[in-house]
Amino acid sequence: MQKMQFKTSNLAFANVTDNGFYGQDIISVKQFDRSKLAYIFKVAEEMRTMVERFGSADLLQGKVLANLFYEPSTRTSSSFAAAMLRLGGRVISINEVRYSSVIKGESLPDTVRTLECYADVIVLRHPEVGAAALAAKYASKPIINAGDGIGEHPTQALLDLFTIQEELGQVDGLRVAMVGDLKYGRTVHSLTRLLCLYDVEFDFVSPSALRMPEEILAEVREHSLPYRETEDVNEVISDVDVLYVTRVQKERFEDPAEYERFKDFYVITPKLLQRAKEKMIVMHPFPRVYEISYEVDSDPRAAYFRQIQNGLYIRMALLAAVLGKA
Amino acid sequence: MQKMQFKTSNLAFANVTDNGFYGQDIISVKQFDRSKLAYIFKVAEEMRTMVERFGSADLLQGKVLANLFYEPSTRTSSSFAAAMLRLGGRVISINEVRYSSVIKGESLPDTVRTLECYADVIVLRHPEVGAAALAAKYASKPIINAGDGIGEHPTQALLDLFTIQEELGQVDGLRVAMVGDLKYGRTVHSLTRLLCLYDVEFDFVSPSALRMPEEILAEVREHSLPYRETEDVNEVISDVDVLYVTRVQKERFEDPAEYERFKDFYVITPKLLQRAKEKMIVMHPFPRVYEISYEVDSDPRAAYFRQIQNGLYIRMALLAAVLGKA
Amino acid sequence: MQKMQFKTSNLAFANVTDNGFYGQDIISVKQFDRSKLAYIFKVAEEMRTMVERFGSADLLQGKVLANLFYEPSTRTSSSFAAAMLRLGGRVISINEVRYSSVIKGESLPDTVRTLECYADVIVLRHPEVGAAALAAKYASKPIINAGDGIGEHPTQALLDLFTIQEELGQVDGLRVAMVGDLKYGRTVHSLTRLLCLYDVEFDFVSPSALRMPEEILAEVREHSLPYRETEDVNEVISDVDVLYVTRVQKERFEDPAEYERFKDFYVITPKLLQRAKEKMIVMHPFPRVYEISYEVDSDPRAAYFRQIQNGLYIRMALLAAVLGKA
Repeated sequence: MQKMQFKTSNLAFANVTDNGFYGQDIISVKQFDRSKLAYIFKVAEEMRTMVERFGSADLLQGKVLANLFYEPSTRTSSSFAAAMLRLGGRVISINEVRYSSVIKGESLPDTVRTLECYADVIVLRHPEVGAAALAAKYASKPIINAGDGIGEHPTQALLDLFTIQEELGQVDGLRVAMVGDLKYGRTVHSLTRLLCLYDVEFDFVSPSALRMPEEILAEVREHSLPYRETEDVNEVISDVDVLYVTRVQKERFEDPAEYERFKDFYVITPKLLQRAKEKMIVMHPFPRVYEISYEVDSDPRAAYFRQIQNGLYIRMALLAAVLGKA
Repeated sequence: MQKMQFKTSNLAFANVTDNGFYGQDIISVKQFDRSKLAYIFKVAEEMRTMVERFGSADLLQGKVLANLFYEPSTRTSSSFAAAMLRLGGRVISINEVRYSSVIKGESLPDTVRTLECYADVIVLRHPEVGAAALAAKYASKPIINAGDGIGEHPTQALLDLFTIQEELGQVDGLRVAMVGDLKYGRTVHSLTRLLCLYDVEFDFVSPSALRMPEEILAEVREHSLPYRETEDVNEVISDVDVLYVTRVQKERFEDPAEYERFKDFYVITPKLLQRAKEKMIVMHPFPRVYEISYEVDSDPRAAYFRQIQNGLYIRMALLAAVLGKA
Repeated sequence: MQKMQFKTSNLAFANVTDNGFYGQDIISVKQFDRSKLAYIFKVAEEMRTMVERFGSADLLQGKVLANLFYEPSTRTSSSFAAAMLRLGGRVISINEVRYSSVIKGESLPDTVRTLECYADVIVLRHPEVGAAALAAKYASKPIINAGDGIGEHPTQALLDLFTIQEELGQVDGLRVAMVGDLKYGRTVHSLTRLLCLYDVEFDFVSPSALRMPEEILAEVREHSLPYRETEDVNEVISDVDVLYVTRVQKERFEDPAEYERFKDFYVITPKLLQRAKEKMIVMHPFPRVYEISYEVDSDPRAAYFRQIQNGLYIRMALLAAVLGKA
């Protein structure tokens, strides 16, 4: 209710061209349609140009971001912090939540309502599904979901999609393979959902124990998009435009022997890539462990470090958008 | 001695209207008289206007705050960090003291004298009573006490008093009830001390095991201020202008049954507030657990989130004052 | 290779007067000759003047430093953070590496290549010898070594040498005593190496179990510099210009009785300093525990807090230099 009040009043001042982001929360990929994605990607491209030319801007001068991480994530918290700083804003980092008020039993709504007394926008990482939506319900300032357990991690999906578009020029018409743990990997779930807004074809490559959940597959079918499921990346490597690799974790298998049997199916090597298209990209949400060999890094098709870089631009775009300065 | 030197030389440049804050430490509420309080509150009001209109200023541009927390406190450290950032200053956070130099046996005086080589002002939270005074003795730059064990937490008391004045227009003539654990709660001790500078009437509402210490009661009597002690908030609810609620912690009771017996006496509910004045406020130093029910949050008399917001303005005012820029 | 590419292209834009620092890593004292030292010290002196007059500058506006600490070090991380902030730059602190990506098994090269997507320069503290060189091999942006295990800590050695020059006007012709644990103390190793570029005389004062390693002594001999080894600081106190004190840690001794026997040999007291020259300095890399008594602090020859202050200026100079703005 408080949020309604605030955000309605905010909207009165919103720039008409902001595509509806001003004052809003970023909780789920489900909030996005192609128009909103196109808008954020256009702003992200402007951010790239700005960073490459000037390093930073003062668009968010005087604004404060509270980076509230209930579980650690160097990459995501650093990326949001850098995004805010390169826009001229300031950052308060709350990384040690487990040691602080929370230990005294404070609820997430109270923590969020406290931090919005100090900050203009809150980025939240939390181990529980639904935490970001709960926080957004109570907060009057924008909440950006930086991952809520096995739930969503929308900014990762946005930067993944942005990378595909930037690297290959468009999304429609592509054939996208997701490889590895498709059952527990929230990044592949969110990305698949976003890709359903486009005209793509999917290959889901995983051990049978780690298949893409039926719920996601149903969503793909609803959009009448073709997909294949397979256990072996060799079967698809020569046909795909995007190879999105995730890690297969040993602890996901009841039988360690099963893990050993599958492990090498999902390791991307220069030899495997010899059979791939010349114009295709290898992506990974990182951190990687063994699933992409280091020798692949020098292959121009290895897009994962550019993907990380794109995370900076996407987060800059989102921060600017929800603060009405995009 | 070092401190004397520094602060004397600093004072030569001090603004004559700074009310004596420039270069000084903020260690205890005992440093404050009504004139100093009025000055800080006036500056805090200016800070509110500035934040509401512009978000931030560049009053402390080029200044660096070292936020030195020997024990975690999300609220207080975030509040000071935001205060410094919104004044255009910068912040170095030292939150993990337990893992660092201190573990190698470094003394507080050495840590403080190190940090003042890098920073212009130090905010210190420490688990031991007297730590802030010790630090101030060795430091040549201003130390602000952000809580030293069961000792003082002067900025909390200042923001509490500021909230009373802002919400009710004045302090003189009010009837203030303190509710909950009055024995161990340093916030109620410090606030009571500050209120003794005004013409107020007190109700101390607590289980008998957690009564306001005799030392504080004596101070109230010395100022010839009336007070009553009671175990039941129902007895005073309809008469008070300020209801300052603190948590009653189970671990304070030797007998758990005693805790269970008292617990509900000190829970503030909409039903209880039906009997309260129309113009009164409910305050809480936060975090709260169960002692104010969530349904109270939408009552306009619930001042605790505005109280948190006031913490930002008070800390901005103090930082500006001790750095000579208020 | 990536690094080569980057740094070569960077050098094209480098200021011709930057003495070769622009875009480069700072990994080891071995990179420095007298000309480079003179350059950095000149810049550090300018930084001192700037800080004393204005507090900060905007030389590095828009630049972001990633402060990547795999082990905690309040002093070093705060010093680098303050240095960056006082130059107008911004800082991302990654202090909890043990809890984050690394725990998921990410390699140092991947972490560094991730952070350089967000930041312009990386300061790295790591428990393993060679970590900084490894990071620099993979990074395309400058890496500054803030200590790699018992390896190097070049910025400490630079600030030590800078302090000697600032305090005594020159380095050539001085007699320098290193006192305490000379076997494991990386600061005395690095400083000795730097001093070998000058015309100095050494006294190495330590328990026999903690003597300066033969490797360092050989380096001193190669430079044809005189040195003496002794167990008792009393033997050299009246002759030295610099007394560089380090801690003798109990855990370094197999026999605790041996520790007790030696402990007091290496405690600097006012009484000991009565026999020292009037113009000499006492230094310490800090933290100290008992090895310099607190009464020494008020002696004008106690240079260790000025030494810490110099750390700020040296780190400002290095950051500005590698970012091409010195």
